[in-house]
Amino acid sequence: MGAGVTRIGRAYPDRVEVRGRDLAELIGRLSFTEFFHLLLTGEEPTDDQRFFLDVLLVAIAEHGLMPTNVAARMTLAADPGSLQGAVAAGILGAGPVVLGTAEECARLLATGGDPETVVREIGAAGGKVPGFGHPVHKLLDPRAERILELADERGVSGAHVALARRFRDAVAPLPMNVSMPIAAVMLDLGFPESAVKAVPILARTASLLAHLAEEREQPLGLLLARAAEKAVEYRPPEPT
Amino acid sequence: MGAGVTRIGRAYPDRVEVRGRDLAELIGRLSFTEFFHLLLTGEEPTDDQRFFLDVLLVAIAEHGLMPTNVAARMTLAADPGSLQGAVAAGILGAGPVVLGTAEECARLLATGGDPETVVREIGAAGGKVPGFGHPVHKLLDPRAERILELADERGVSGAHVALARRFRDAVAPLPMNVSMPIAAVMLDLGFPESAVKAVPILARTASLLAHLAEEREQPLGLLLARAAEKAVEYRPPEPT
Amino acid sequence: MGAGVTRIGRAYPDRVEVRGRDLAELIGRLSFTEFFHLLLTGEEPTDDQRFFLDVLLVAIAEHGLMPTNVAARMTLAADPGSLQGAVAAGILGAGPVVLGTAEECARLLATGGDPETVVREIGAAGGKVPGFGHPVHKLLDPRAERILELADERGVSGAHVALARRFRDAVAPLPMNVSMPIAAVMLDLGFPESAVKAVPILARTASLLAHLAEEREQPLGLLLARAAEKAVEYRPPEPT
Amino acid sequence: MGAGVTRIGRAYPDRVEVRGRDLAELIGRLSFTEFFHLLLTGEEPTDDQRFFLDVLLVAIAEHGLMPTNVAARMTLAADPGSLQGAVAAGILGAGPVVLGTAEECARLLATGGDPETVVREIGAAGGKVPGFGHPVHKLLDPRAERILELADERGVSGAHVALARRFRDAVAPLPMNVSMPIAAVMLDLGFPESAVKAVPILARTASLLAHLAEEREQPLGLLLARAAEKAVEYRPPEPT
Repeated sequence: MGAGVTRIGRAYPDRVEVRGRDLAELIGRLSFTEFFHLLLTGEEPTDDQRFFLDVLLVAIAEHGLMPTNVAARMTLAADPGSLQGAVAAGILGAGPVVLGTAEECARLLATGGDPETVVREIGAAGGKVPGFGHPVHKLLDPRAERILELADERGVSGAHVALARRFRDAVAPLPMNVSMPIAAVMLDLGFPESAVKAVPILARTASLLAHLAEEREQPLGLLLARAAEKAVEYRPPEPT
Repeated sequence: MGAGVTRIGRAYPDRVEVRGRDLAELIGRLSFTEFFHLLLTGEEPTDDQRFFLDVLLVAIAEHGLMPTNVAARMTLAADPGSLQGAVAAGILGAGPVVLGTAEECARLLATGGDPETVVREIGAAGGKVPGFGHPVHKLLDPRAERILELADERGVSGAHVALARRFRDAVAPLPMNVSMPIAAVMLDLGFPESAVKAVPILARTASLLAHLAEEREQPLGLLLARAAEKAVEYRPPEPT
Repeated sequence: MGAGVTRIGRAYPDRVEVRGRDLAELIGRLSFTEFFHLLLTGEEPTDDQRFFLDVLLVAIAEHGLMPTNVAARMTLAADPGSLQGAVAAGILGAGPVVLGTAEECARLLATGGDPETVVREIGAAGGKVPGFGHPVHKLLDPRAERILELADERGVSGAHVALARRFRDAVAPLPMNVSMPIAAVMLDLGFPESAVKAVPILARTASLLAHLAEEREQPLGLLLARAAEKAVEYRPPEPT
Repeated sequence: MGAGVTRIGRAYPDRVEVRGRDLAELIGRLSFTEFFHLLLTGEEPTDDQRFFLDVLLVAIAEHGLMPTNVAARMTLAADPGSLQGAVAAGILGAGPVVLGTAEECARLLATGGDPETVVREIGAAGGKVPGFGHPVHKLLDPRAERILELADERGVSGAHVALARRFRDAVAPLPMNVSMPIAAVMLDLGFPESAVKAVPILARTASLLAHLAEEREQPLGLLLARAAEKAVEYRPPEPT
C-alpha cells in the first residue's frame, strides 16, 4: 500500500482501469472529448459539457503560424528525429501572454467583483484586464463571438457569461478575446477553475502536431529561423 | 508574399481560416477529434476514420502512473506556476521505448516484408520487433485486443491489420501491445505513416493534463521524488 | 538592416564575433566561466567576479538525486536517443520551490526594506521568506556557510551580504539556504538582478549532464519510475 | 539500502558529497570547468583536460541568433515568467542537424575505419559525413581551425586528431566544422565517447542564458516571430 493516492487510473496485467471503469469498455463507446472529460473530472460529461468541450477545443486549437508553431517547427528542423521534443518546445510557449490567460480569466470571474471597480483598480495598478485585446483581432475576435452565440443558443450562459459581458462593457472598446468565453462557459458548466487551462493546452497540442506533420513533409523550420535572424541586427559595443 | 507555404491555417483580423474553411463555421459543428483529423490531414474524416481516431485516442491516453506522468508531477511540484512546463516535461518521455513505437510499427507494416523472415532478421541483428511485449501486460494487452475486435466488427481490418496478425504469429508467445494495432488500423484507414505518432502524443497530453490537475489538488510530486531517490544508494569511489 | 538589435554576437563566413571580440582570440584565453560572464554581461570579469562566479556555479550544481535529476533520468530511459530532451525535462524543474529562489532573494535584497518588518509582513500574509529553510539541511546549509566565509575572506561582502545576514537573524532559527548568498554575493559584485537566475540554471545543467552520462552507462530511470509508482495507491471512486 | 547505485553525489543534513569529496572543500578550490569534469568523469582534470574543456566550451557556446536562441527568445516572450521553460525550449533544438554531430563524429573516429573507404561508403548510401560543411562557414570554420592549432601547440593532438585530418582530406573541399575537433580532442584526452555531447549542450546553455537575459531587457521575441511568420504564405486548398 502506498503513502499517496491517485484516483485517475492504473494498469493491471489483464486490464486497465480509468476512474473506476474498465478501459476496454470505454474504447469504442466514448469519444476522445468525453474521455478527456472523464480523465480530468472523474465523471462522464453531460450533453452540454461534451458539446462545449468540443466547441472550446476546436475554437482555440489553430491560429496560423503562431510563435508556438514557429518555435516547434524550428526545433523539429534542428532535431528531426524527436517529434516529442518539438511538441514540447511548442507547448512551452503556452504562457500567459496569449494562451494562458484563460486561467486568469477564470480567476477574475470566480472572484465575482464588480467589473467597473475591478477594471478601474487593475488600470490604476498599471495592469491589463485578462481576456481583452488581441494583436490580430483588433476590433472583434470571431471565436469569442461564436462561443457566446452558441452558449446563448444552447441555454448554458449563466452567471459567469453574464459577468464576462459586464467586463466587456467596462473595458470597451477593447474586444473580448477567446480566453474570456472559454473561462466563462467552463465555469457556467461546472468545471473547476483548475481545469480551465487544460483546454487550451490540449487544443494547441493538436495544432502543433498538424504543423509538425506538415513540417516533416514540407520543411519550413530553417527558412523561419533565417527570416527571424534577418530581422535583427548585431551591434557590437562601441570602442571606448 | 512569403518564400514558404503552409496549408494549415491563418488568422485575419475578422476571421480565422483553417484548411480553407472559416473556423467560426467549424466551431459547434465538428468534434475535437474531427477537427484534429482536418488539421492533420486537410480533410474531414469519414465515419470510420472518426470512429477509430476516437478509439485509438481513448485506448492510448491513460495507463496509470507511467514514467511520463511521474516526471510531469515532479516538475509541477518544483515549478507550480508552469502547467505548460510540466506538460512539456511529460511529453519528452514519449519516446521509442514504449510510446513511440507506433511509428516504428507503421514503418514495419508499410515495408510489407514477410513476417517470418523479418522477425528472424531482426532477431539475428539483436533487435526487438516493435509492437510486441509489455512490462505490465505480459500475456495479453487488453487495449490491443479491443482495437482489433472493433476493427473486425466495423469491417475496417485490411491488409495492414492482417499483416500485424501474421507478425503476432511469428513473434508468439510475446503478446501484441497497443502500438501495433494503432499503426495497422491507421494505415488501413488511409492515414499517412507520418501521422501515426501524432495520435499517442495527443492522447498522452490528455492524460498528463488530468494527472497535473489532480497534482494541483492533491500534490504527490515530492513524495514520488523521495520514493525514487530512496531506491538508489550513493556509493562513493573507494579510496585508492 | 534589421528592425531589432542584439549586442551578443554574430557569425560571419570567416569569423564569429562575440560582444565585439573575435571568438578565435577568446578561445584558449578565457575560461568557460570568464566567457559566460562576458556573454551574460558584455564585460570580462574582474578577478573577484570570476572567482565568485566559479564559487557559486560549483556550490549549486550538484545535490544528489534531486527531483530534476530523477525526472531527467526517467525521460532518458523512455527516449534514450535524445540527451537534449532529457536535459530539457530536468531544467523544467528548476522552478521557484527550491532552485528558482535565488532570483526572489535578489529581489528581496534589492528592495532594501528593514528585515524585521519585511519578515513580519510576509508572515502576516501567509508567505514564506525566500532563501531560508531546506528539506535536507534542516539546521544549516553547508554551501551557504562556505560562500559567506569566502566572501568575507576575499573582502567582497558588502551591503547585500550584510542585509542577508540581518534577514537571517530575523528569520532564525530557520537556516539560510544556498539561494540567499548566491543573490547577495552577485549583487555585491555588481551583477544585475536579472542575471541571478542564470547561475543556478547553468550549474544544474552540468549536474544533469553528469547524471545522464551515468544513466547511459548504468540505467536507473525505469527503477526510479517503478519505485515512485509503488509509493502511490490507485483508489477508484466508491460505487454510489 | 537501495536497489540501484549512483556514484555522483548525495546530500546529507550537514554536508554534500560529490564523487567522494566534501563539496564545501571543492567550493573555492575548483573552477566550474574543473568541477564539471569531476562531475562527468569522477576525476579532477589534468591541466590539459582542464585547458581543452575550457577551449571547447568557449568555442561552441555562442554563434549569434541561431535557431535555438530564436526559439528560446520567442518562448520567453510568450511566457515571461519561466526562464527555465525558455532555456528548455532552446536546448530541445540541440539536435543532430548542427549541434549534435559532435557525438556522431566521436563514433566515426572511434570506429577507426580508413577515411577514404568510409567516406565513399557513406556517400554511396546517400549519407553525409558528420563534422563537415556549415551553412555560414562555407570555406573554413574558424573555430575548428583554432582548436586544432591549440591542440598541436599544446601537444595533445593524437590518433583521433590525426584521423580527423585524414577525414578532412577525404571530404575536401568541404570544410571541417567545429564538431569534428571537439570529438577528436576529447577522445585524444581520454574522455569517453558518451561524454562528448555534454560539452555542446552545457556550452549552448550559457549562450541561451545570455540571450534570455538580453531578451528580458530588450525584448525581440515577438518581432522574431512576426518576421518568421511573414516569410510564409498560407495557401488554402483549391476548391474542387
